[in-house]
Amino acid sequence: MSDKSTESEIRSLLAGWAGAVEAKGPARIASVYAADVVAFDAILALRFEGREAYGAHWQACLSHCPGEMAFKIHDLKIEASGDIAFCHGLVRCGGAGPDGQMQSAWMRMTIGLRREAGAWRIVHEHHSAPFDVESFKALFDLEPEGEPEALVA
Amino acid sequence: MSDKSTESEIRSLLAGWAGAVEAKGPARIASVYAADVVAFDAILALRFEGREAYGAHWQACLSHCPGEMAFKIHDLKIEASGDIAFCHGLVRCGGAGPDGQMQSAWMRMTIGLRREAGAWRIVHEHHSAPFDVESFKALFDLEPEGEPEALVA
Repeated sequence: MSDKSTESEIRSLLAGWAGAVEAKGPARIASVYAADVVAFDAILALRFEGREAYGAHWQACLSHCPGEMAFKIHDLKIEASGDIAFCHGLVRCGGAGPDGQMQSAWMRMTIGLRREAGAWRIVHEHHSAPFDVESFKALFDLEPEGEPEALVA
Repeated sequence: MSDKSTESEIRSLLAGWAGAVEAKGPARIASVYAADVVAFDAILALRFEGREAYGAHWQACLSHCPGEMAFKIHDLKIEASGDIAFCHGLVRCGGAGPDGQMQSAWMRMTIGLRREAGAWRIVHEHHSAPFDVESFKALFDLEPEGEPEALVA
């Protein structure tokens, strides 16, 4: 449902953005957001409004992860028309603990984009883990069915 | 970023769908989904693929709520172009417990839509609560800043 160039522009934007997360570059992360981005992150708050607030949240998150970070997008599906697109996928998200051991889990990600002056920008982002209905705890041990497809930029 | 008729068509679709949730009508709920819907629900599983699987999940959810249900969409923001749209908002979601007492919380909702044969259908849905980084428990006591705007169809 999206033409080849849009598809590859968005894949390339998200590959660079995921790379910026792994490289812990808050300025590079924030550079892909529209000024009026509204984000639903997986932790802490209901929502973040605006590039500045959400960028500050990213910076705080990164500073809590002193070790190596992983942020690998899989099963990305894009729908686009004109200057609007949305996509969703699963993210294998992890960080090294104080013992240097990598801990990771599958998270869900939905992204809404708008093309502004020829460049795709993220205007909405939603990250989450589902929770257990008895304990209300986030479920970090779920595995997708099948073999999730890694993002190709 | 969406014309008036698209905006009102989508608001009307979502108002009917939210009404179907409150009326506990699984067939009416499922009727708004595209056959290939991919859903990230707030509970239990990473994702649900296809109208049948997701409809069955809705039915299971509704049967776990014997009492009154509330599903009120707020702060809906729509971006659309041609036959593709996405939107996000906060949902005041609740149900009556065994004591008849209503318990509710703010949840986050993102929806992706495609117009098929002239009718908007949900092709992607993402519901969640953020979790606490210490306890990993879903945060049900968060309040949005300001006064969230109720959905007008």
